[in-house]
Amino acid sequence: MPLNRRGLGAALAALTATAAKAQTPDPAIIKPQDWATSLGDGVVTNPYGIPSKYESAVIRRDVAWLTAAKQSSVSFTPLHALEGTITPNGLCFERHHGGIADIDPAQHRLMIHGMVEKPLVLTLQDLKRLPRINRVYFLECAANSGMEWRGAQLNGCQYTHGMLHNVEYTGVKLSTVLEAAGIRPGAKWLMAEGADAASLNRSIPLPKALDDCMLAFAMNGEALRPEQGYPLRLVVPGWQGNMWVKWLRRLKLDDAPWMSREETSKYTDLLPDGRSRRFTWVMDAKSVITSPSPQAPLAGRGRTIISGLAWSGRGAITRVDISLDGGRNWQAARLDGTTSKLALARFYAETDWTGQELLLQSRAHDDTGYTQPTKDALRKIRGVNSIYHNNGIQTWLVRPTGEVENVEVS
Amino acid sequence: MPLNRRGLGAALAALTATAAKAQTPDPAIIKPQDWATSLGDGVVTNPYGIPSKYESAVIRRDVAWLTAAKQSSVSFTPLHALEGTITPNGLCFERHHGGIADIDPAQHRLMIHGMVEKPLVLTLQDLKRLPRINRVYFLECAANSGMEWRGAQLNGCQYTHGMLHNVEYTGVKLSTVLEAAGIRPGAKWLMAEGADAASLNRSIPLPKALDDCMLAFAMNGEALRPEQGYPLRLVVPGWQGNMWVKWLRRLKLDDAPWMSREETSKYTDLLPDGRSRRFTWVMDAKSVITSPSPQAPLAGRGRTIISGLAWSGRGAITRVDISLDGGRNWQAARLDGTTSKLALARFYAETDWTGQELLLQSRAHDDTGYTQPTKDALRKIRGVNSIYHNNGIQTWLVRPTGEVENVEVS
Repeated sequence: MPLNRRGLGAALAALTATAAKAQTPDPAIIKPQDWATSLGDGVVTNPYGIPSKYESAVIRRDVAWLTAAKQSSVSFTPLHALEGTITPNGLCFERHHGGIADIDPAQHRLMIHGMVEKPLVLTLQDLKRLPRINRVYFLECAANSGMEWRGAQLNGCQYTHGMLHNVEYTGVKLSTVLEAAGIRPGAKWLMAEGADAASLNRSIPLPKALDDCMLAFAMNGEALRPEQGYPLRLVVPGWQGNMWVKWLRRLKLDDAPWMSREETSKYTDLLPDGRSRRFTWVMDAKSVITSPSPQAPLAGRGRTIISGLAWSGRGAITRVDISLDGGRNWQAARLDGTTSKLALARFYAETDWTGQELLLQSRAHDDTGYTQPTKDALRKIRGVNSIYHNNGIQTWLVRPTGEVENVEVS
Repeated sequence: MPLNRRGLGAALAALTATAAKAQTPDPAIIKPQDWATSLGDGVVTNPYGIPSKYESAVIRRDVAWLTAAKQSSVSFTPLHALEGTITPNGLCFERHHGGIADIDPAQHRLMIHGMVEKPLVLTLQDLKRLPRINRVYFLECAANSGMEWRGAQLNGCQYTHGMLHNVEYTGVKLSTVLEAAGIRPGAKWLMAEGADAASLNRSIPLPKALDDCMLAFAMNGEALRPEQGYPLRLVVPGWQGNMWVKWLRRLKLDDAPWMSREETSKYTDLLPDGRSRRFTWVMDAKSVITSPSPQAPLAGRGRTIISGLAWSGRGAITRVDISLDGGRNWQAARLDGTTSKLALARFYAETDWTGQELLLQSRAHDDTGYTQPTKDALRKIRGVNSIYHNNGIQTWLVRPTGEVENVEVS
């Protein structure tokens, strides 16, 4: 069953076949339905709006056994239930190391010190006097798909790929603030520290800091959400989420990296020979089919939309391939709209499903020429000791019932 | 005081001057602040996240005297408090004619009938089997700024310009469904009807319906919000919001417009001579400065960001001018990032405010060569009988205290 075998004309025929039983409109449709016979709620019933009660299953979910406490845990974005490319703020995944800092923005300060000409302590109001930019970027946790190193384990792309979101950030270029402080000769590294109980900190090489990093105070038009670093977060486009320090309180310049906990014992990739890959910052090209997927089974046979997301920390997505047979045959998916650099891209493939078993895979390509590898190819180089940087090709088994399962193919 | 008189170097000097008092970092900053000394909330404290308690003023607001009942009223987007271009779903303005229809998506049906070869009744699942697209569009109510026809009245851009939002829609091209039903020769108009208590309906010329209209089931990645038409809304890019029928239940093709209530006694512009402009669908180019504005006064003298939004129902925004003196002198603002067709564009101007009175204005230009007119120029042609299609230049008076007021200049 090749993909896109039939053009749009055939798709329409399939639609009218689906709807054929209703060629003569049901009189029940013409008379007003219940919801059209009485007034509904008025305006500002919810001054800050909420989703429909029928969407109550579209939520972030955690995995209880994953961590000792919810303050050092993760909740996952329900990718299987989302459309488009923008992630709603209320559904952006969470990963905390000491819980959500509850910060009064009027009391918040950002300190810039170390190898600078003039140390600064800035309020949010100071930052809001500087030129502002808006950029859409994906953020992926380094541990996203981490449990897949040892085989297919979690049954749903919410869990296997849901440490991922994509929003429009508003803020100030980090370079603007560093230049205001004055970078002293010899400074090569920037340490960013959060104001949470974990004082999470990471070292960032100065060229990246001066290239495209942002000090963001808004996401998708409104203030950052508490769990995303309110009131200030470091944005490190294309690099692993752990470096996007939330509740940002301190930037220190020095001539060497800090070798802090989160870049030594954690967030490094342990190789089969016992050595670790050091500074694996960039998130390589990756993709996942979000529908169908284990939490989004096929509703029935006939015309079917296969949909998913692709992203690359090195640039823009140029192509996504789809396989229905576990990687033996590949065809190009349709990338929807413009695919901007370091942001999620949405892809689609239309097919007719006749009820046969499928082994669904997607494979991303980026504008550096890189192609998303298989999990086995990654394991050959990296072994299975790490929980980080697994960008291998994911496989969903679609059963004749329409149910979908996370599986491995060799 | 010209705009952008000083370059970035000077901006940085201004910043370090602002922060000069803090050149020696306050020891209080270096020791952990309260929120860094104990664990915060864990993950899924809110499975569907909500804003910080410090942002509780960033909400939709209505105007009690405006309408007889909240079910036929409007609430406004807090533009003055928003950044970037995407509007968060919870803050998108509301305008209802019979309250919010509370629709069970499993029971929802869309009927396509009239001058078609094959009438169809489609479920949401039927629609989700068709090829899907994602597009960002602004939506503006025809009555946005309506009260400004008779002079400056409401003190805040939330009220003067807040019937406006901008989100990423996901759905099916309307043309796909109409072609599936088969358009009969002679069909020229499409009537779209909502499933709300008002059965709100509008006539749309078939060329527009077949050009870029969408049947949308998602906004900013998740299902439509109830107040935005859950589970299905018609998207009519660049045209007035009233035509973007919410809770969409019916599409009927015919050879003439329906001349329904919302396109005859309402949503037509009454001219000084007693005649009405018929079918004023397109929203002409417009802009507004969102900060500073009456609800977002200036925090103090010194380096200041002037920020606003611009949009055009005819194409893309190509330039926005800013005046500090009520329209005598104009300079180009900086348009941030790419400005896509029929979507909001964000503009900025950086200036130094020394405390003098300002008469702030913005003026949008689009890629058809159209320039946003003054209110007086509009009144000369249209009089003051209408409440629709006021895209005149807005003026904010900034007082030496930093307070801002809605005023008129001639």
